[in-house]
Amino acid sequence: MGSTASILGLGAMGSAIATRLRETGYTTTVWNRTPAKTEPHAEAGSKAAATISEAISAADTVLVVLLDHDSVREQLDPHAAELEGKTVVNLVTTTPNQARETAAWAAEHGIGYVDGAIMAVPSMIGDEHARLLYSGDEHAYNTVLPLLETLGTAEYTGKDPGLASLKDMALLAAMDLMLLGYVQAIAMMRTAGTPAADTAAEVEAWLAAMLPHGRHIAAIADQGTYDTGGQSVDFDRAGIRSLITASREQGVSAQLLEPHQKLLEELAATGHGDSDWIRIIERLTIH
Amino acid sequence: MGSTASILGLGAMGSAIATRLRETGYTTTVWNRTPAKTEPHAEAGSKAAATISEAISAADTVLVVLLDHDSVREQLDPHAAELEGKTVVNLVTTTPNQARETAAWAAEHGIGYVDGAIMAVPSMIGDEHARLLYSGDEHAYNTVLPLLETLGTAEYTGKDPGLASLKDMALLAAMDLMLLGYVQAIAMMRTAGTPAADTAAEVEAWLAAMLPHGRHIAAIADQGTYDTGGQSVDFDRAGIRSLITASREQGVSAQLLEPHQKLLEELAATGHGDSDWIRIIERLTIH
Ligand SMILES: NC(=O)c1ccc[n+]([C@@H]2O[C@H](COP(=O)([O-])OP(=O)(O)OC[C@H]3O[C@@H](n4cnc5c(N)ncnc54)[C@H](OP(=O)(O)O)[C@@H]3O)[C@@H](O)[C@H]2O)c1
Ligand SMILES: NC(=O)c1ccc[n+]([C@@H]2O[C@H](COP(=O)([O-])OP(=O)(O)OC[C@H]3O[C@@H](n4cnc5c(N)ncnc54)[C@H](OP(=O)(O)O)[C@@H]3O)[C@@H](O)[C@H]2O)c1
Repeated sequence: MGSTASILGLGAMGSAIATRLRETGYTTTVWNRTPAKTEPHAEAGSKAAATISEAISAADTVLVVLLDHDSVREQLDPHAAELEGKTVVNLVTTTPNQARETAAWAAEHGIGYVDGAIMAVPSMIGDEHARLLYSGDEHAYNTVLPLLETLGTAEYTGKDPGLASLKDMALLAAMDLMLLGYVQAIAMMRTAGTPAADTAAEVEAWLAAMLPHGRHIAAIADQGTYDTGGQSVDFDRAGIRSLITASREQGVSAQLLEPHQKLLEELAATGHGDSDWIRIIERLTIH
Repeated sequence: MGSTASILGLGAMGSAIATRLRETGYTTTVWNRTPAKTEPHAEAGSKAAATISEAISAADTVLVVLLDHDSVREQLDPHAAELEGKTVVNLVTTTPNQARETAAWAAEHGIGYVDGAIMAVPSMIGDEHARLLYSGDEHAYNTVLPLLETLGTAEYTGKDPGLASLKDMALLAAMDLMLLGYVQAIAMMRTAGTPAADTAAEVEAWLAAMLPHGRHIAAIADQGTYDTGGQSVDFDRAGIRSLITASREQGVSAQLLEPHQKLLEELAATGHGDSDWIRIIERLTIH
């Protein structure tokens, strides 16, 4: 059964994955809570399973593409015994601890477990630009690697099953803050009548030029002394104060910028005014 | 006196500007509160003025490169009469309202006034990649444009003297949030032993790929109906909840991400759960 796979969940992502595996020659069995979604796949050559048990027995590799952690546990827990000796690849977005929890459950029942995080939208599945992170049991990962490689670029992040999710979440957090940067700039410039499209074009060019500054931040964080003689907490406090004042003057809330100010004020209050501002990383870490 | 200029303030930026103007053939007069800083400039061929009055009388164009708004007003206010008929280019970082205030003062005293914002570090002055934004009196701007063009790429943003500063602040706010994205990701990945340099390299590549998404955000904001059928407030609420939980699970404060969650929860509570999440722009704007 080296080239069989069962896919649980035929939402936007599960559908794209089932389609890709079928088109690359896998014998696929699909299951979905709402059975109607299996129909187009059955017409295209997949087997439609009426029950999860049927889907599990049809393949050694079970890909889970449900909504969230709770739906995974709700659906899989009753089938632990049937999954013994098989490999489950959980592609559902979860937190690191949720991934660790499911991995522990799988280990307890003799189920090979790989946790995945998909850094792509469904239309990218099958493309090398689709990046999929994996973590957990390395042996199980290597067993299913040929299959995973048909989905996109596969990257094993480590044995801790929470790692793929952690990296996913860290990158998504960085993206979220960057997108909020667009939102803040658009809101500010809109008060002067500038269309959002014009502001976004400016911001895009500016951020592209500033992106490499992240390397500088990283070097300071890795060094960990924060005595670089670069931009200090006190200097940054003045800068962020101007940003916040400018935003409010224009009638735009500065709430997205306020946590930065709060962290800097805390550093100044604890005698770190002369430190490099990157020391805020230390305040984020709950020791 | 078409090719004379006086520079008030010889900090890192004022020094770079005085040097550039001198090297491109301007007859330069320099003044600094702490006189010692004029010495290297005098040796290199600038005139060192002992007083602001002396610097003002030496040129028709006066470039102000002091620390902040307060230092500008403290130094210039007593010299309003001497500045009449001359052009002041204020390159000091200020808020939009501070720029408007200084412009009103200048207008009252018959002083040509251009407000500038420098989107560059001192070492870039003279390079076309140094971008300098200007706003205020267009006639005054055109009078000094040849001089401004020697400093870097000059961009006139409009008659409202606050515009250069507003655009500066909007771009800096976007950059600030993007840099905080690096900080958040580095703090999260560090809990798994990943060096900041490795995280920054990942984040840089990821953000570079995601930068064009700003155009999509802008199109939704410009349309203004937030009924695009794209990523909804409710969908984003689940996403941001996962990010915040993941961060805290790893022992990293999620305070940088919390304002986003708060805005989404407010939108959901006011019946906008189905709206595109970009509607948060409306909540930032104080109507
Ligand atoms: N779409 C993306 O761009 C993207 C990108 C990266 C990661 N992901 C992740 O991929 C996973 C799937 O996303 P998607 O876009 O395919 O979501 P989706 O289109 O909303 O589909 C959700 C799927 O989960 C099923 N489901 C929900 N609750 C269930 C339950 N309690 N029991 C059984 N089945 C349940 C749904 O079945 P019904 O048809 O019966 O409702 C459907 O098959 C999510 O974890 C998502 O975070 C998605
Ligand atoms: N450096 C940059 O990368 C950069 C980039 C963009 C914009 N800017 C803006 O450019 C301006 C100057 O920056 P900088 O880097 O040159 O700063 P700096 O190196 O700290 O120099 C500050 C200058 O202001 C003078 N000064 C401060 N308070 C004064 C007062 N009350 N009266 C008279 N003079 C006073 C100082 O004189 P003393 O020598 O007597 O102290 C010095 O000449 C700032 O508004 C800054 O935001 C700088």
